[in-house]
Amino acid sequence: MTTQNPPTKFYYWEDFFLNQTIECGPYTVTEEEILEFAQKYDPQRFHVNKDSAELTIFKGLIASGWQTAGLMMRMVCDGFMLSSSSTGSPGIDSLKWLKPVRPGDTLKTVVEVLETRALNSKPTIGMVKTRWSCYNQHDELTTTIEAWNMFEKRPVSV
Amino acid sequence: MTTQNPPTKFYYWEDFFLNQTIECGPYTVTEEEILEFAQKYDPQRFHVNKDSAELTIFKGLIASGWQTAGLMMRMVCDGFMLSSSSTGSPGIDSLKWLKPVRPGDTLKTVVEVLETRALNSKPTIGMVKTRWSCYNQHDELTTTIEAWNMFEKRPVSV
Repeated sequence: MTTQNPPTKFYYWEDFFLNQTIECGPYTVTEEEILEFAQKYDPQRFHVNKDSAELTIFKGLIASGWQTAGLMMRMVCDGFMLSSSSTGSPGIDSLKWLKPVRPGDTLKTVVEVLETRALNSKPTIGMVKTRWSCYNQHDELTTTIEAWNMFEKRPVSV
Repeated sequence: MTTQNPPTKFYYWEDFFLNQTIECGPYTVTEEEILEFAQKYDPQRFHVNKDSAELTIFKGLIASGWQTAGLMMRMVCDGFMLSSSSTGSPGIDSLKWLKPVRPGDTLKTVVEVLETRALNSKPTIGMVKTRWSCYNQHDELTTTIEAWNMFEKRPVSV
């Protein structure tokens, strides 16, 4: 699985700034992977069975919202996170599932920096708050996430 | 994958009430599934490689937070969601990764009802807000989620 061209730089905490945007993806979702994820993590009838899904308000198979979040994470990993000093995340302030993701959809995730914050308690680490907006091939917004991430600061030259 | 005894009742919206708690799980996490999830969805070094993970602040392999959320979803599915009139979720108000989940951890998820709300716009559906608290085998809180879910109301007898 590869979602795009690799990033051309390495991101430390200092490389993030207010209103910066980074486009991640695209990634095309298959029916097979929707069923595979749902069977293990979220076997509700609209995620795990095409025929049953037709009878629900979704009128067809849709990806588990947790899988969409996972695919956004992968797009963000390939977009910049793997080429960064990321040391994990304390959590998410908001996650909205606005529109279902269906087999064959091609997604992209636009990351926008909302806030950067230094930590008095940890002088080598800073926080970055970002909004992740996941669009499908019709430019419809499917999912938004507001996430906090920790990044190491750029090492001081000696 | 089965996480527990099946629920003994079917839950409509009317069956949820303030401060109700439902215990879901347990589920024991394997190293193999941590690596498998991370390779596809979140290939950061502390999720995807034991040796690299030793060198990070986590000092060992940890599950992607998105996988922990997925495993909580599965425990909740088996605990009551699959035996309910659930019609999906509009989103999450908060998700906190408080403590890493590691290979061999045995998790349980306690669901507590925070609010129930009827919808004027959709008379057949109601909303339920819940807090999901995921504990490990040491009774340490690893993850919390505050989720909104939609449930169909109990059909009116004729």
